[in-house]
This record gives sequence, C-alpha cells and structure tokens, in this order.
Amino acid sequence: MKTLVRNIAQLGGIQSHNKALRGEAMADFPVLPQAWLVLENGCIHAWGQETDPKGLPQADMVLDAKGATVLPAWCDSHTHLVFAGSRENEMVDKIKGLDYAAIAAKGGGILSTAKAIAQTSENDLYAQAMARIERLVQMGTGAFEIKSGYGLDLENELKMLRVIRRLKESLPIPIRSSFLGAHSYPLAFRQNHEGYLQLIEKEMLPAIVAEGLADYVDVFCETGFFSLAETKRICVAAQEKGLGVKLHANQLSAMGAVELGVALGAISVDHLETMDAASINALANADTIGTLLPGAAFFLRQSQPPARELLQAGAALALASDFNPGSCPTGNMNLVLALACIQAKLLPAEALNAATLNGAFAMGLQKEVGSIAVGKKANLIFTSPIPSLDYLAYAFGDCWVNKVMVNGQFI
Amino acid sequence: MKTLVRNIAQLGGIQSHNKALRGEAMADFPVLPQAWLVLENGCIHAWGQETDPKGLPQADMVLDAKGATVLPAWCDSHTHLVFAGSRENEMVDKIKGLDYAAIAAKGGGILSTAKAIAQTSENDLYAQAMARIERLVQMGTGAFEIKSGYGLDLENELKMLRVIRRLKESLPIPIRSSFLGAHSYPLAFRQNHEGYLQLIEKEMLPAIVAEGLADYVDVFCETGFFSLAETKRICVAAQEKGLGVKLHANQLSAMGAVELGVALGAISVDHLETMDAASINALANADTIGTLLPGAAFFLRQSQPPARELLQAGAALALASDFNPGSCPTGNMNLVLALACIQAKLLPAEALNAATLNGAFAMGLQKEVGSIAVGKKANLIFTSPIPSLDYLAYAFGDCWVNKVMVNGQFI
Repeated sequence: MKTLVRNIAQLGGIQSHNKALRGEAMADFPVLPQAWLVLENGCIHAWGQETDPKGLPQADMVLDAKGATVLPAWCDSHTHLVFAGSRENEMVDKIKGLDYAAIAAKGGGILSTAKAIAQTSENDLYAQAMARIERLVQMGTGAFEIKSGYGLDLENELKMLRVIRRLKESLPIPIRSSFLGAHSYPLAFRQNHEGYLQLIEKEMLPAIVAEGLADYVDVFCETGFFSLAETKRICVAAQEKGLGVKLHANQLSAMGAVELGVALGAISVDHLETMDAASINALANADTIGTLLPGAAFFLRQSQPPARELLQAGAALALASDFNPGSCPTGNMNLVLALACIQAKLLPAEALNAATLNGAFAMGLQKEVGSIAVGKKANLIFTSPIPSLDYLAYAFGDCWVNKVMVNGQFI
Repeated sequence: MKTLVRNIAQLGGIQSHNKALRGEAMADFPVLPQAWLVLENGCIHAWGQETDPKGLPQADMVLDAKGATVLPAWCDSHTHLVFAGSRENEMVDKIKGLDYAAIAAKGGGILSTAKAIAQTSENDLYAQAMARIERLVQMGTGAFEIKSGYGLDLENELKMLRVIRRLKESLPIPIRSSFLGAHSYPLAFRQNHEGYLQLIEKEMLPAIVAEGLADYVDVFCETGFFSLAETKRICVAAQEKGLGVKLHANQLSAMGAVELGVALGAISVDHLETMDAASINALANADTIGTLLPGAAFFLRQSQPPARELLQAGAALALASDFNPGSCPTGNMNLVLALACIQAKLLPAEALNAATLNGAFAMGLQKEVGSIAVGKKANLIFTSPIPSLDYLAYAFGDCWVNKVMVNGQFI
C-alpha cells in the first residue's frame, strides 16, 4: 500500500547520517521545494520534485498536502512528563521575592512533586501523562524520552517507570525511558547519602533492570544534589547492568559534570547553562550530544547555554523541552524552537536539526525517526502555509502545525 | 432572551471602576468560585454562586460551562496587525550578528514593511488582517487597537486606515484605530523633517479626520525617529482635530517621551523599556496608562520595563501584544501574559488586570469590555479545566483557551 503525498511546498529534513550533526554542519537543514513524498507501510519510501519531467510516481492513494511544509516530527529527548500536580504557587512566590531555600522550606521544589506522585495511583499518573502526550503529539512531537525521578523511593520510582512502560506499549510513537532516582536526595537521606546510593544500587537498579523498565540512567549532577563521585558511582553501576547514561550537567555550576559525562560515554549531557572552557572543550571533542533546554532557562530567568560557542567549537547539539512542573511547565516544542533562536541564538536551521535528527540521536532513535530518510517512520508535521522554514521560529507565539502524521496516518 | 451559564469553576475579573486600576490595587483580580452567569442580549446581566441557597435564576436557555474558568476576553490595546509580508530574514541576520544599521542598509526594518504595504491592495491587506484577527479571537482576544504607520505617505496611510475601518464595520468585536504616520521618517524626508511634518499636518490629518478614520494619533517618540518637539507638534495638531493621543515612549532611551505624553494627557504611553526616575515619577502621578509590550522586549532581546518599580510608584499598567512583523510577530495574548510574569515579574493577577480591564481603559473601551460587569459585552474566555488563574501564566507554552464567546455567542 503506497501513499503519494503531493503538493508539498517545502519538504524539510531530508538527510541520513551515522552520527549526530555537529558544529557548522548543523546550519544545513536540507529542504526540497515543490516536493512529493511516497509512504509505504507507515514508513518513508521515496521523494522527489513535482517539477521533475519524469512525472509523479504510481501510488494506491494520493494525499494533497495543499501547500503545507512537511518536516520530521519533533524528537523531544528530555522530558519529565509523568508527574502529578502543578506548581504555579512557586512561580508567584518567586515573583514576590522568595528564594529557592524559602520555597523549599514551604515544601516546594522537586520534593513537592515527589509528594504528589506518592499520593497518585499508577492509573491516574498514566491517564494524566497520556493526556499531556496527546496534546503534544497534536503540536508536532513524534518521539519522547521520559524520566522517572519524582519517586525517590523504590515503590514510587517503579510506579513512574511502569507508567512509562505502559505509555511505550500503548502509544504508536517511540518512547525512551530514563531512571532518574538520583534527581534529589529525599529528606530521609539528606544526611545519609551513602544510604540512598546503596538503595539505588542494591534495590532500585536491580528491580528496574529485572523488569526491563529503563533504557538510560540519569543523574542530576550538581552542587547540592549529586557530586561527581556520587554521579560516577551510580552511572557505572547502571552501565554494568546494560543501561546507557544521560546526565543533568552544568545547569547551575561548571563543576565537571560535562567532562564526567563525556568520560563515561554518555549519550547526552543536558542543560549546559553554565559552561567553562574545559566543559566546552570536552563536549566539542566527544560523540556525547549536548542537549539544550531553553524553556527551563527561560522560565527560571537563567542565562541560556552558550550555544554559539558550542557550535563554533564543533559540538553536536540537541534541543528538548524539559517538560516538568517546576522549571518548564510546557512541552510545546514549537515554542522551544523559538526560544532556542531568540534567547540562545541558534539559527533556525540549527534549531530544526537539533529538534529533529539530533534529538533522535540523543535517545538512540536515529534509525526510526528524526529525518526524511528511506525506511524511517512517517512521523511528520504538516504546517499551515508558511513563507519559509525560518518562519517557524520567528512567529514565536503561534503553532503553525496544522496536522501531524504518525506511522503514515494523520492523528 | 436570557442565557444562564452554569458550572463555572472560577468566574474571574468581576469589577467596575471609573478609572484604570493602579499600583497595589492591580494585585487584586476578583474571582468567584463555583459561579453562574446570566447573559441577556449579548451582554452580562447577573452572576452568583451555585452554592447560594436561593438557587439558580430563571433563564430561557442554559449552557453548561463544564468546569471552565470564565474571564473577560483579552483587550489588546497596542497592535500593528495590518501589515504585509514577514521579516524572519531579519531575525536570522541578527543572530548572524548584523546590527540595526546593517539590516536597514539591506532594506530591512519599518521601511521594508512599508514597501510591502505599498505593493499590496486594500482588499488583500483586509483579508490578511482578518485572518490574523480570526486566529487571535479564537485564542481569546475580544477587543483590539490597530495602528497605521507602514504607509508613510498619504495614499498608503489612508489605505491602512480604511482597512481598519472595514475591520471595525465587519467584526462583532470593538476595534480602535490609531494614526501612526509618525512611525518613521520615510527615505524621501530623512533630511527634510519639516516637509514630512507638514505632510502629516496639512494633508494626512485633515483627510483622516474628514473620513473619521482614526480614534487616536500615535507617534514613535525616540532618538533617531521623532523628537520631543516634533512629537508634541503632531499630537497637538491631532488633538485640535479631536483625536486622542497615544505614544511609543521610552523604548530605547529615556528622552522625556513619557513626561511629554503625561503633559499632553495621552490615554497611554507604550513600551517603557528604558525608564528613569523622572519618567517613573511622571507616570505614577498621572491618569495616563503605561502599556507594557513584553513580546517586543523578548523578541528584541531587550530588558523588560521596570514593572515592579512602576507598580510600587502607583502607576496604572496595561498589557498588549505589539503584534507586528518586525519586533513582535505574534498577537498571542496568552503568551504575552506569561512573558509579563516570567520576564517583567508581574504577578499573574496584575497581568490579568493589565490584559483585561486596563487594556480596555487604554483604548477607551472600559464601558464595553474588560471585566465582568452589568451591561458589558459578553466577550468571554472559557478555559479548559485549570487548577487556578495563576496557572494561565505558569503553563506558558500552552493556550488553555477552550472556547471564546463574543456578544454572548460562541465563535
């Protein structure tokens, strides 16, 4: 069953690569004007130009894209979208001048969401996460990574990861799962880090691996959270059990987290708001992908990562939402794209590559999604008519995604 | 014909005032939980609580709000939404490091849009603006001010203002029109300011007033654009012909524009990114409304206006989009609300008042729209279920507007 999609004003993201795009190459987001696309069995089969004198290919069905721009659906490689509750009260407290410590003293922060998670059933968490994903797929996201990390004990970390597994099983789009038990020390272990590290190593990791619940381990490597040594210990234990590594690195301080991630062979190091020469240099010379989360820096009123310096140094960058109730209460990748350009000064083409193919690489899904390539899933965005691809980042308050295709079917 | 709207989780913005809200009073956005609302002839007639033992009022028709939060539609008191073309190329040039002068030398800036306006027919301008407005009404805006200012000659300023008049006549929502011939000196008059000022005074203003095309005059009072003396001369000439005054003030420099606006009795002074003690003091002690345009400061990577200082001093603030193709290519007031809180540090309640009732005051529409008050138009936002009104600004990447009512009818 072949479907011909014709009358595509611009077909964007036509590319195949064995490694993530990096440095100067990120400024090239290949676009074919006046294009057609053939889909077969939910996958991309062929493409060409309507102006080609050979004419259009044969197909069983023809779809008229009506002048849409078509591009790969967003690959959001960093989310915490399984959560309960909302934390707009903390936003108000911060505007009133309360600092992080005062908000924590009122019961806010990660531990506030952890409390809400503990009080919410697996079924309810699943339903809430599913509703979020359905909204986001309509806004153009076609693959997600989702983290645990609001459980912070065996029972609730497993609950979160089982929710993610159910999402994997029931959704037609690829989902990757990361175990983030090392998101914050729970109150009971604030003075007993060794106790929590042993809980992770001896109880959580074995149970998670036995159930096959995680693709990656992730650690919030930061002053006041998990030290370099603690981070390394957790990552090595997880790697020995076959998990890949992601890190929350250099969000608040340049304390060596990026360098550690690179040394561990992490698939990605995420955040990067606070970089120094050593961390930029480490990332520039590694296969590890640097994942920017401009929505979080925006919402927290932080400086954005030094994206231009990272690209000039030759790093590979991905773009993700960081959707979570504390520091980025949205998963709208269209706005993330705009924030990356307006605040972090990525060129629109760089941001498009970062949010599609490099996002796919940052969760090991580059063979399935992230570009227009033969055999990849037809997870595609169809826009309303727009004058150029740059327009998507420029018209920052609007969602120009008109229709979204998953496995060759409009949803 | 009375319509009862019941099952409203929160009815927000219930208030009547003779003057715009100012200073501390802006932090109170009155909300009634578990409410009902009666509409009559497209206007607000009565409201109350479902828990009231007297029971619900009689009505000819009952609508179930299904737990929506209901609030006055946004009043967007500063837009340039009649335009042609888009300027994403300038966004890319700026990321690449080009400055304002280099972009202007390439034909960019206001004059680029002026060129596009000159090449576009009145009918096409009307159709494009109408499409923008229809999108924005669905996103919750129920009243607009629209400026000319990309014409910069008699023919094209009249063309823009006639487009705005046609929008006024054909739309069911209130529209106010501002003549912004003094937006920039056109190339032909760069060395002959006197010539352009005379063109405005002797040709444009008389023709505009003869056709009744404008409610306000507006001037871009700024170094390199219109000086204090030039601004005053244009405003006085317009006032003598019965127009009200608005100003683009203190966007790039504190050169006295706010003080001039206050002295002229302007209804609003807009932008305010660059304020000093004198301009803050002038605004704090005047009826003139200070209109913040956080989308423009965000897109231009400027500092936001000192909103907290202005409120502490006692000023009245409105919030508007500044929708235009150069410095704010969106009219999404939901995102403007979030930007006002995240970047300019307004409290959500202050931003809600600024975007509704004070927005209405800033275009002289306070008797028609901007709050839940007897006799005002039922131009209302119905949200999806949300936990609180603060949530609207917190969930910054999402549009929680589910349905919009204009004159008592869902559109």
